[in-house]
Amino acid sequence: MRLGVIYFSKTDITESLANAVIDGALTVAGTEIYKHRIVGSEIEQGRYANNAVIDELSQCDAIVFGSPTYMGSVSAQFKTFADATSELWCDQKWSGKLAAGFTCGSALNGDQSSTLQYLITFACQHGMLWMGIDAAPGYRDFGINRMGCQLGTLAYCPDGQIHEIDLATAKYQGKRIAEQLNKMGKA
Amino acid sequence: MRLGVIYFSKTDITESLANAVIDGALTVAGTEIYKHRIVGSEIEQGRYANNAVIDELSQCDAIVFGSPTYMGSVSAQFKTFADATSELWCDQKWSGKLAAGFTCGSALNGDQSSTLQYLITFACQHGMLWMGIDAAPGYRDFGINRMGCQLGTLAYCPDGQIHEIDLATAKYQGKRIAEQLNKMGKA
Amino acid sequence: MRLGVIYFSKTDITESLANAVIDGALTVAGTEIYKHRIVGSEIEQGRYANNAVIDELSQCDAIVFGSPTYMGSVSAQFKTFADATSELWCDQKWSGKLAAGFTCGSALNGDQSSTLQYLITFACQHGMLWMGIDAAPGYRDFGINRMGCQLGTLAYCPDGQIHEIDLATAKYQGKRIAEQLNKMGKA
Amino acid sequence: MRLGVIYFSKTDITESLANAVIDGALTVAGTEIYKHRIVGSEIEQGRYANNAVIDELSQCDAIVFGSPTYMGSVSAQFKTFADATSELWCDQKWSGKLAAGFTCGSALNGDQSSTLQYLITFACQHGMLWMGIDAAPGYRDFGINRMGCQLGTLAYCPDGQIHEIDLATAKYQGKRIAEQLNKMGKA
Repeated sequence: MRLGVIYFSKTDITESLANAVIDGALTVAGTEIYKHRIVGSEIEQGRYANNAVIDELSQCDAIVFGSPTYMGSVSAQFKTFADATSELWCDQKWSGKLAAGFTCGSALNGDQSSTLQYLITFACQHGMLWMGIDAAPGYRDFGINRMGCQLGTLAYCPDGQIHEIDLATAKYQGKRIAEQLNKMGKA
Repeated sequence: MRLGVIYFSKTDITESLANAVIDGALTVAGTEIYKHRIVGSEIEQGRYANNAVIDELSQCDAIVFGSPTYMGSVSAQFKTFADATSELWCDQKWSGKLAAGFTCGSALNGDQSSTLQYLITFACQHGMLWMGIDAAPGYRDFGINRMGCQLGTLAYCPDGQIHEIDLATAKYQGKRIAEQLNKMGKA
Repeated sequence: MRLGVIYFSKTDITESLANAVIDGALTVAGTEIYKHRIVGSEIEQGRYANNAVIDELSQCDAIVFGSPTYMGSVSAQFKTFADATSELWCDQKWSGKLAAGFTCGSALNGDQSSTLQYLITFACQHGMLWMGIDAAPGYRDFGINRMGCQLGTLAYCPDGQIHEIDLATAKYQGKRIAEQLNKMGKA
Repeated sequence: MRLGVIYFSKTDITESLANAVIDGALTVAGTEIYKHRIVGSEIEQGRYANNAVIDELSQCDAIVFGSPTYMGSVSAQFKTFADATSELWCDQKWSGKLAAGFTCGSALNGDQSSTLQYLITFACQHGMLWMGIDAAPGYRDFGINRMGCQLGTLAYCPDGQIHEIDLATAKYQGKRIAEQLNKMGKA
């Protein structure tokens, strides 16, 4: 059972969410991780050029996408990666894989959900199954998901600080995905 | 393995999509169907009042949601049903179920995808997994999905006519969902 | 210069936002208000039946739409109203009018922005111009827009309470719309 | 009255839409145009580096954004530009300007509207007013808007060809924006 985590992070906040997702996934026996942080040097004139990363992700049973919310959607750096997957799209090579996403932003409700909506559209284009967060804020919420979005992990990070509960949400998300892979016979 | 199909249809076009989804699902051995068409008489002052339908859906392993696109989203009639599920939401009783959607509209690109986006948000609120269509238009497309949307079945129905290929897309969708339930050990 | 405010409110929270929008608009000389609260008794079997309301709105230069966020979008009651405007849509009778929206929800980031996105789609279908909130949270924000969404007024109302700053955001919004009508020669 | 058109185009299709928007705007007396095509050489490690373009746009009364739809949203190249406007955002320097958008894609309903939705979110973040297309497909449509989306100009370009009616829609859009600037006293 192999879980890929691909993300962009400028300030290490999104990185900390990626690590929390991985921590959660590793609580499930049999989970292997492939992790990659997109960096600017992989981008040539607006195009993502590290195809080896895409090949590695193709070997995963689930892929979790992560990006800070910049101006209402994923960062341009993440989008270069998304655009570079278009060849795989033609053949629907990621069909049937599980997908999920995480993001953060510096306002309480500053279009982070728009980022997650984009990631869902992207995952559906690849024929993937989207898994969000089954924690209803204020009711059955396990003490996580303080923000109340169920599309994925949505963090609020004013002043460049990550909140403990947002990390707990990401960890829960990683565990949920790994458990789902087990149910789908990937373990 | 039990598949629920819940939809509103005024002119029988969405009904024909519902039937095609069911036809596809029944090609997979072991599939049982629960089907319900939302009707105006179930709605009292803007509130959906047929709770028995919601109870039946709670017994399903997957639920497919269908509505024509009216003024940029699901019809109000469908929305009364969606709003009535809020009690289930508190307890996340539909967590882990598979979800999918279908819609139709009288323009080529007349916000049908906005309807499917809404259904995804709704399904994620319930902790469900969303499954779209893994058919890349113009490439690996099996001769279906002429419209090119992969969020779900998206039909274009000018003059009140349903297109053969849109029905084929819905049938493919039903089969895909039933096969996925098998993989998830629900058969 | 005539401003219409049309909204659904079950618990008076959305009502209080409507009143704040109106308060703001009335600070601009020459503003007349048409206000209507959608009620369940206007809805017959899922269809909005009070056409006089739609006629009144057609006489306005700007229309502000309001609804609580229910299960990820506008309430079904509001949607019955939206669906009932489809005849006006055919003739684009609201073309060129100014549009804006407000919503509230019981979670910090519980899909309120999905409601505003829907209202934007709805307004664009009518050929209207959409005006959001020009207050950048944490920077140029006038002490309003604590939630950080700029699509419209987005309130967070846990425990059935409305926050002072959310009311201030709605008031600012009403004033902004009325001032814009002046600029467009409607005063 | 100054209209800015900023866009990315790889194959000249989006370029042809940009030109059509400009043709339409120039039918209105007093219109000046600023036009810029984003190119890869302006992007350094995923960041847009041509600040002079952003300064020019700040001198415009309206800005029209254009991008092909790549993997469900604006191209990464366009997104580098969007991200680079974040400093202006802090001060809401584009507040009150008119905004509009155009896109194209190779499928009938292949998430082009998701691109326009993003552009709306982006424009609202900047405090701009969004203007779509007031042409109801099949009814009052002036022979344009064959695709039926009213968020902006949405083109369908299979085989790398642009359709005459999509160009006509873009031209109508440009004219509509210029006329609106007149109404707002910018002429």
